[in-house]
Amino acid sequence: MNEREWLEYLKKYLYENPPIIATFNEDTTVIKVKENQYLLFTTDALVEGVHFELSYFDFYSLGVKLAVSNLSDISAMGGEPKWALLTLGSPKPIDSSFIDPFMEGLINTLEKYSAHLTGGDTVKSPFFFFSLTLLGETERPLFRRGAKAGDYLFVSRPLGGSASFLRLIRKDTPLELIPENLKKAHLQPEPEIELGLSLREIASSAIDISDGLLLDLSRICKASQVSAEIEEEKIPIEEGATLEEALTGGEDYALLFTVPEEKLSFLKNLPKEVFFIGKIIEGKSEIFLITKKGERKSLSPQGFDHFTFPLQP
Amino acid sequence: MNEREWLEYLKKYLYENPPIIATFNEDTTVIKVKENQYLLFTTDALVEGVHFELSYFDFYSLGVKLAVSNLSDISAMGGEPKWALLTLGSPKPIDSSFIDPFMEGLINTLEKYSAHLTGGDTVKSPFFFFSLTLLGETERPLFRRGAKAGDYLFVSRPLGGSASFLRLIRKDTPLELIPENLKKAHLQPEPEIELGLSLREIASSAIDISDGLLLDLSRICKASQVSAEIEEEKIPIEEGATLEEALTGGEDYALLFTVPEEKLSFLKNLPKEVFFIGKIIEGKSEIFLITKKGERKSLSPQGFDHFTFPLQP
Repeated sequence: MNEREWLEYLKKYLYENPPIIATFNEDTTVIKVKENQYLLFTTDALVEGVHFELSYFDFYSLGVKLAVSNLSDISAMGGEPKWALLTLGSPKPIDSSFIDPFMEGLINTLEKYSAHLTGGDTVKSPFFFFSLTLLGETERPLFRRGAKAGDYLFVSRPLGGSASFLRLIRKDTPLELIPENLKKAHLQPEPEIELGLSLREIASSAIDISDGLLLDLSRICKASQVSAEIEEEKIPIEEGATLEEALTGGEDYALLFTVPEEKLSFLKNLPKEVFFIGKIIEGKSEIFLITKKGERKSLSPQGFDHFTFPLQP
Repeated sequence: MNEREWLEYLKKYLYENPPIIATFNEDTTVIKVKENQYLLFTTDALVEGVHFELSYFDFYSLGVKLAVSNLSDISAMGGEPKWALLTLGSPKPIDSSFIDPFMEGLINTLEKYSAHLTGGDTVKSPFFFFSLTLLGETERPLFRRGAKAGDYLFVSRPLGGSASFLRLIRKDTPLELIPENLKKAHLQPEPEIELGLSLREIASSAIDISDGLLLDLSRICKASQVSAEIEEEKIPIEEGATLEEALTGGEDYALLFTVPEEKLSFLKNLPKEVFFIGKIIEGKSEIFLITKKGERKSLSPQGFDHFTFPLQP
């Protein structure tokens, strides 16, 4: 099974009845506590040899990235992150040389967004792995479902930087020769918590781009039962990255969201500039790219799938 | 650092201010929602080669045990388990030969106690690991702190079965020659959810025995600033297990709890028979064993510490 088949398979085991109003068809589980009060519940892991190698990932950045990968899911639901539990698997006795920077990165990042670590579990393991579970809250969750034909499509920042960093690393580029913006994009990305909160009254749907623009856009389309048309010349690309990396690279943690025409005027109230990239159209989860030459191409969503074997290089 | 030093170290990073009224000095994080309403938040992992080997652990049982190790923490807080997230690390493509029995074991066990899986994360990994996070609720949490000199000490069932199973496995005993009660104790243990709920009005403190009677008793003593005296002849030992296994074996998932003298009459209302093993006395976290010969020995809490290196055989 690849990741999509696995998610499909898992559905039969997932509980989705009130008060659970969304499971991981969405970015987080959503538990309705009462009117205008929802709990958000999500988990994400980093595994040595799969998500990172210690040859280029320092422990401070690992703490940051573990926090961000979870915070980003909360941001996509329009939530405020609150409480976190850590599971740490370590192949060697824990000592300050690595645990101090890791914990600093994790805690600094959580607390920057008013979230706090409250506990966890430590286990011996043949290699490092880090798993975080994050609880958040919102008055009004944003979903992947909800996009309608005619809605405008936006991303929150330039894409492809994280994938571009990995391309350079795989070509054995020394870390010190990789531009700072690409290092930051992969090693210490930022979640869009503030933007997510602002989008609750504006966006008709949202997702965080963790598996590539095309794959995550196809999730919005599938959940909303629509298609999308994006314009090559509008897609913001991180300096140094390629169009392909912007379309299919993973771990950008930007927000991708849709806004109905009648709410476009509210965009000026957002805490940051966002980038228009296309529109939602009627259809069955297809994605079309209008190239710079004006051609209209149907694209298949090729994203980042850790579960496709053999491993990508 | 061993596990105790690590927990000590981690304290400086843990948030323990309202609404967080307990962190993992307790069995779970306790979040006060309002008067008489608390969320319980816990996580526990099973790692191949550390917590289990596939030579003797079938996947159905792994699903059961992952659920129970988390349910047991909720039981110790007097809670009702509610919602769970799974993280699955797999060294090979997911196929039904192992995922079907694993999910059946996990889901059957969660649902037996009215808990439900709502989502999760899957990652490729050099070997299998399973991590579960469980949210629970209670009107009144039970804590490790709260035992007082004079309180009576109880355990909820015979101990040592799980450790006894491991002893036989390490001696290369074929699985089919190991008695059913010991197999069940290690491979498919049961959590004490119903008992935990009944204890909320009776017990002054409680913990689940996951790291051995002595180590978990020392945690109650430390949290409550008391000592304890237990009687060798009263300790219920699982058939086939030794006294040492009952005292220091891990993963029993029985409850250990204290009851003030004035509440002893309520014990008859509990949903099951429990075993008196000794009393709480004044002191500084010491544990004394009254032997069958009437000697009084001071014991050091030697439990199961996955983080002590080198690994135990």
